[in-house]
Amino acid sequence: MLRSCTCGDLRIDNVSQEVTLAGWVQKNRKMGGMTFVDLRDRYGVTQLVFNNDINAELCEQANKLGREYVIQVKGVVSERSNKNPNMPTGDIEIIVSDMKLLNSSAVPPFTIEDNTDGGDDIRMQYRYLDLRRNNVRSNMELRHKIAFETRRFLDAENFLEVETPILIKSTPEGARDFVVPSRMNPGEFYALPQSPQLFKQLLMVSGFDRYFQIAKCFRDEDLRADRQPEFTQIDCEMTFVEQEDVLNMFEGLMRHLFKYVKDIDFAEAFPRMTWEDAMNFYGCDKPDIRFDMKFVEIKDLTEGHNFPVFDSAEYVGAICATGCASYTRKQLDQLTDFVKRPQIGAKGLVYVKYEQDGSIKSSVDKFYSADVIKTWLERCDAKPGDLLLILCGDRRKAQKQLCELRLEMGERMGLRDKDTFAPLWVVDFPLFEWDEDSQRFYAMHHPFTMPNPDDLALLDTDPGKVRAWAYDMVINGVELGGGSIRIHDGGLQKRMFQLLGFSDEQAQDQFGFLMDAFKYGAPPHGGLAFGLDRLVSMFAGLDSIRDCIAFPKNNSGRDVMNDAPSKIDDAQLKELFLELNLPKED
Amino acid sequence: MLRSCTCGDLRIDNVSQEVTLAGWVQKNRKMGGMTFVDLRDRYGVTQLVFNNDINAELCEQANKLGREYVIQVKGVVSERSNKNPNMPTGDIEIIVSDMKLLNSSAVPPFTIEDNTDGGDDIRMQYRYLDLRRNNVRSNMELRHKIAFETRRFLDAENFLEVETPILIKSTPEGARDFVVPSRMNPGEFYALPQSPQLFKQLLMVSGFDRYFQIAKCFRDEDLRADRQPEFTQIDCEMTFVEQEDVLNMFEGLMRHLFKYVKDIDFAEAFPRMTWEDAMNFYGCDKPDIRFDMKFVEIKDLTEGHNFPVFDSAEYVGAICATGCASYTRKQLDQLTDFVKRPQIGAKGLVYVKYEQDGSIKSSVDKFYSADVIKTWLERCDAKPGDLLLILCGDRRKAQKQLCELRLEMGERMGLRDKDTFAPLWVVDFPLFEWDEDSQRFYAMHHPFTMPNPDDLALLDTDPGKVRAWAYDMVINGVELGGGSIRIHDGGLQKRMFQLLGFSDEQAQDQFGFLMDAFKYGAPPHGGLAFGLDRLVSMFAGLDSIRDCIAFPKNNSGRDVMNDAPSKIDDAQLKELFLELNLPKED
Repeated sequence: MLRSCTCGDLRIDNVSQEVTLAGWVQKNRKMGGMTFVDLRDRYGVTQLVFNNDINAELCEQANKLGREYVIQVKGVVSERSNKNPNMPTGDIEIIVSDMKLLNSSAVPPFTIEDNTDGGDDIRMQYRYLDLRRNNVRSNMELRHKIAFETRRFLDAENFLEVETPILIKSTPEGARDFVVPSRMNPGEFYALPQSPQLFKQLLMVSGFDRYFQIAKCFRDEDLRADRQPEFTQIDCEMTFVEQEDVLNMFEGLMRHLFKYVKDIDFAEAFPRMTWEDAMNFYGCDKPDIRFDMKFVEIKDLTEGHNFPVFDSAEYVGAICATGCASYTRKQLDQLTDFVKRPQIGAKGLVYVKYEQDGSIKSSVDKFYSADVIKTWLERCDAKPGDLLLILCGDRRKAQKQLCELRLEMGERMGLRDKDTFAPLWVVDFPLFEWDEDSQRFYAMHHPFTMPNPDDLALLDTDPGKVRAWAYDMVINGVELGGGSIRIHDGGLQKRMFQLLGFSDEQAQDQFGFLMDAFKYGAPPHGGLAFGLDRLVSMFAGLDSIRDCIAFPKNNSGRDVMNDAPSKIDDAQLKELFLELNLPKED
Repeated sequence: MLRSCTCGDLRIDNVSQEVTLAGWVQKNRKMGGMTFVDLRDRYGVTQLVFNNDINAELCEQANKLGREYVIQVKGVVSERSNKNPNMPTGDIEIIVSDMKLLNSSAVPPFTIEDNTDGGDDIRMQYRYLDLRRNNVRSNMELRHKIAFETRRFLDAENFLEVETPILIKSTPEGARDFVVPSRMNPGEFYALPQSPQLFKQLLMVSGFDRYFQIAKCFRDEDLRADRQPEFTQIDCEMTFVEQEDVLNMFEGLMRHLFKYVKDIDFAEAFPRMTWEDAMNFYGCDKPDIRFDMKFVEIKDLTEGHNFPVFDSAEYVGAICATGCASYTRKQLDQLTDFVKRPQIGAKGLVYVKYEQDGSIKSSVDKFYSADVIKTWLERCDAKPGDLLLILCGDRRKAQKQLCELRLEMGERMGLRDKDTFAPLWVVDFPLFEWDEDSQRFYAMHHPFTMPNPDDLALLDTDPGKVRAWAYDMVINGVELGGGSIRIHDGGLQKRMFQLLGFSDEQAQDQFGFLMDAFKYGAPPHGGLAFGLDRLVSMFAGLDSIRDCIAFPKNNSGRDVMNDAPSKIDDAQLKELFLELNLPKED
């Protein structure tokens, strides 16, 4: 080894030991006859001292060291006179007796510090330097730890990690599949998996009983802010289980991760909420329950007062912002502007200030007396000093807008602390989702999801009402994972494909091997998948998944560091039996 | 849970407990008024008993159960009168009181037993049924365990597992890259990585210090018997290390795996052998040292006797097969035929029998007296009863043939026991390999390998003599992994590219981002990669890697179970700006 210990190892107990260190020059400063160098590696920073009186030549070399030079030094650990309590190694320094330059460095395009002067683009281009920064590297350390602890937990629970293929079958409907031309099979393509779903179900048919995989998945779709063309899932499946068993097992996994990665113990069982309640009380299927501020429906209390806006609305809903009656005109205008933004699309915002002195001021004073408004306040459990914010319109649409407003108020009121974690299971998702455009049902989760047996009779009469044995784990308003009990009966699976508009041929072509497998003793099974990237972001308190991926791609799916994707040469295209057919440029 | 315990759990201590089991019907037999069903799951087999006298209806249902039906039963654990000591659950049986059919099964196309009646093709087509067989599934359990223990060891040694991208830059020379057209970047392609080599070196530049990844790699080449288009590597890299450190670390990993997976402790340090010695004593760079039988050069002892075959040969080498002097004419003819097969290509085989009575019989009696031949026997340390086998020709070519003969003899003499493991480090590989066809040097390992500094002067004068800091781990004649200390100096790396015939433009285009990274303080680093598939095969005593992959592809790169690769439709091709250009059929 080119070192006897790392730059994070040495303490006061090591004083007078002779050591060898290697690392990067973080900074270098001359003070009188002394030169101090901060030497950095993954484990920490250690101060090196060069004394001009003792070894002028060595000191001169030290003076010439630039930022990010790589050096190896020998020296003796010495107690600092001027200790730095902010550094674990701050009690000591190394009196250097020998130094070897291992590599020099050009001046980096940005400073390698927690608060760098580099913008996003330059940091992505020089990602290998960005990764030197402590805060970026620590996200990768966190990712390693989460993956490792996930495996430790699941191994102890008898799960087997099985690698499923990356080069799989391309399906005609899979327009979002990445495809891979096969040189050995001219004109044919593999696809990259969007998830290992079918393979993990096959493994259950194979009797693997408990499977998991930390698996790369791929999606060739236009990338929104927080999507990557390749992403990682913690993919799990179990046999001979009911929904309750799956929830308990993976609540256990999440508790394990919080305990061993963040030292957080949850005292209570994770709360569970039906999808219906989530929509009605929070306006979305992934409520942030770090704070309450539930929706209260007041339509019935608003009727008969000739206020056409409420009277014509299907839904009138309020949230009560505790202690916000003191909001100024300006603040209320900001909130109105917020809900009227095109992304949210509300027509307006009604407010009611329940002043400390018990008086009421509202934007609908003209239509509603204080007595009527008091009935709203009562239903909302408002106290003097609180502020009601009211939106109306079509039920689901208005609830969605109110959801955004609620989150905005939570933000403004400081109720969304990144160090507080509020896990939640959302259950009883609908099996189908109606699509207005194509006038047909889609599977809300996926076509392999088991309908709740209590609702089987509704499959023919009112499919939109059928609940699924499907569930999501939500923490702080972020969907971290989800899954379902799967259909294991070939007949029911066939019926599902029919309800979803697949012809028998399409079903056979795309899922034939699963249907075939179901003929040979498929056991009841179910599972779920967590998004590892999101999980790490949440643990790290990051807003984007990009910062917890070592080499992410940008919004155009490009790796700007190594300039991928790129052109390939004609010989290679020819070998693949392909020709380019590019759009004409004007 | 649909069960209270698994089919492998119950023992004599559980007698009189009421249990619920679920699993597959392995077999079902009627004996008088009783029906016995073997119920199977991943954990074992438990015998179920149905008594016609007690519950005729239930017994009748049991009689109707076919192989691979999935059932759930309730019953009481009872001591067997007729115990089966070959089964862990063989002391007990379940007196069934209730049964639920969870799924039926068509008759499987082959029997789900260790010795199945199914051929290779049908088992691959129904891989999900093949995976039900204990011996196939246990390979996957072994694979899980090896991967898990690898992570446990490396985590404890401060290695971070970092996921590097699967969609990477395609390089013009990478004819063996799989490519992936990018919809969002018309006319451009990603490549799938043949290894994470460049990314792991970048991580070392980033100061990650110790990296590993169990990584999927891809190679679009014609598949030999034991190759797959996608394969898995245990990929590792360390900073501030010398070759010795890397060897020690990963010898440690291998010891850990043998200990925790196979309960084998190696008393001695793994032996090390130079590449030169491996070639001269074993004729290949991955010697099987479970047995000795080293090559002995006897050219000098054969000269001057007018035997043109030896006289004209650059090399005459012998192996001594202990105790094989009794080989018959027929056996010797078989060996001659063996070495004359086109795959081996020797012109003939010379033998010397050193009989028990001290007399000598050889196939070259005409040319060599017993006294001359005795000098050969002495040099080979042969004893009465031994057999010398001699090949000659061009040095490397004859050594390669002798290598095959040695392995064949090892096989015949029972010296290659699958339960004996003989690890070996091969070191001091040449840096370059001369290619006669293209009349140029190629990197024997890869272009990033550090030359041995002692040989740097030879880089210009005699490149073929330069040794690399490169090493392979070999066990039982199988190369399980290899690696090198890498170049971390931009200037030396540039020189290497030149020596390998890259133009500056080519080097910049393919490896520009690595060369750029080397400008900013690249530390000394090195590492290696193990082939996980081969490692598992070796631990499992398998001949092929295919049997330790859950869903492997055949020699044409096809997954015959789900019929991949396959055609994609025109709309999808168009979206990717591609057209097919298929070879004309005659």
